[in-house]
Amino acid sequence: MKYLHTMVRVTHLEDSLKFYRDALGLEVRSVREVPQGRYTLAFLAAPGQSDAQVEITYNWDPEAYSGGRNFGHLAYAVDNIYATCERLQAHGVAILRPPRDGRMAFVRSPDNISIELLQDGPALPPAEPWASMPNSGSW
Amino acid sequence: MKYLHTMVRVTHLEDSLKFYRDALGLEVRSVREVPQGRYTLAFLAAPGQSDAQVEITYNWDPEAYSGGRNFGHLAYAVDNIYATCERLQAHGVAILRPPRDGRMAFVRSPDNISIELLQDGPALPPAEPWASMPNSGSW
Repeated sequence: MKYLHTMVRVTHLEDSLKFYRDALGLEVRSVREVPQGRYTLAFLAAPGQSDAQVEITYNWDPEAYSGGRNFGHLAYAVDNIYATCERLQAHGVAILRPPRDGRMAFVRSPDNISIELLQDGPALPPAEPWASMPNSGSW
Repeated sequence: MKYLHTMVRVTHLEDSLKFYRDALGLEVRSVREVPQGRYTLAFLAAPGQSDAQVEITYNWDPEAYSGGRNFGHLAYAVDNIYATCERLQAHGVAILRPPRDGRMAFVRSPDNISIELLQDGPALPPAEPWASMPNSGSW
């Protein structure tokens, strides 16, 4: 057997692509519009890692998507957690759990999917503004 | 960057291992007990696919984990969708969306995480009891 993807539902496709693609850094692998089902699917993955995707389901008929506690988060290793958090901030994403330790951060997608970011390899040396940035919200 | 895992919270560690490991067929890669945090983490992955894991978080202090609509499901390709569904049934797992088409099925974990199963490669020829089995519940 083989892991294929984690599917998340989104209320706004473009806002979600801005988050997952532009701010987080995933690549869009395919987009499939299904007019007869009134939905669009977008599959994204980390660069060079096609076999572990996020499937974004955008239903054309509006629905508000609340979260639950049984699903926790999606986790990604990143090359430089400070650079990733800066890029996320530049796209208006709040760093809920800043990487004070140079190792771990949490953000949320526009539909409140929790995303864990982990520094690949050893933690980076503590650095401002992250080292003294308090937590906000929950993740 | 690199996808690491999808984290889910579970109310019973053993029941969840029976589901994800024994019934679904994932392998346990590591288990980490953290007494000072009163939680246990178990990391599982499909055989031969270490780089896409499920992280099971078992908090020792009881909490009921409800689901939300923003998270959809985890999806796995399987070698024989009928054999997988038989094994799940043998472990008491309801086949909510039976593989009538020899291609797709849905089940849920003990904590209601939706799991999509997709036949790897072309669909299998329709076969009983699946071909005439109705849907049940939601997934």
